[in-house]
Amino acid sequence: MSAHSHEIEEGLAFLPKFDAAGLVTCVATDVATGDVLMVAHMNDEALRNTIATGEAWYFSRSRNALWRKGETSGQTQRVIEIRTDCDQDAVWLRVEQIGAACHTGRRSCFYRKIEAEGGGAKLVFIDDVRLFDPNDVYKK
Amino acid sequence: MSAHSHEIEEGLAFLPKFDAAGLVTCVATDVATGDVLMVAHMNDEALRNTIATGEAWYFSRSRNALWRKGETSGQTQRVIEIRTDCDQDAVWLRVEQIGAACHTGRRSCFYRKIEAEGGGAKLVFIDDVRLFDPNDVYKK
Repeated sequence: MSAHSHEIEEGLAFLPKFDAAGLVTCVATDVATGDVLMVAHMNDEALRNTIATGEAWYFSRSRNALWRKGETSGQTQRVIEIRTDCDQDAVWLRVEQIGAACHTGRRSCFYRKIEAEGGGAKLVFIDDVRLFDPNDVYKK
Repeated sequence: MSAHSHEIEEGLAFLPKFDAAGLVTCVATDVATGDVLMVAHMNDEALRNTIATGEAWYFSRSRNALWRKGETSGQTQRVIEIRTDCDQDAVWLRVEQIGAACHTGRRSCFYRKIEAEGGGAKLVFIDDVRLFDPNDVYKK
């Protein structure tokens, strides 16, 4: 292992490894249940804001914009703990989620499971409950 | 919302949205504790193999190769449930992890937390226990 790899994997310096687009992958889980709420991305500014404020900030690839989670919907995330992984290219947030993490109004974005069917796969709803109506929240 | 978006978000067809490199992001969590074990990637073949076999397969970007988790280390993942998210570009595996998920020998790749320090951040070890010695496992 190179000295650089050793520093990244075993060191105490936070040296996030951003991809070509300047982003790291971020997983947010519900601190109460352990459920994965969403997978999103952070740029350097989103990461800094999250660490400094204790609220989750992300970078939207589709809107090409920094984004405080819940700024439109009110469904904010209070960050209880932030971790990084061995190669420091991913971040795990344990959060207290207000309401729903998903823009469809569901608690988690992962509301469908994948099941094998013949040689392929199909989806099955696990949670179809909407905690808000996206038409009310996003299309005013 | 377009008819296509509606089908992706609300439908029962599994239509994974691979990125330009042909990959989806995959989060594996420990079914017993809810802890995030690792964040990795899957190509179409890894996804198909995982669904068909009930064991986790990934695609290594650094080695540019399909990879059955544990094929070298013996630290396999038995898949209890697979979910996908609203836009179907990410997959969540709930797994029974044999031993350690991380190539460093730790149970999870997320063995350090990020803490604010002054205007910046530092890392603090949460779990420094190695369940195997990577020198024994990978360098024979």
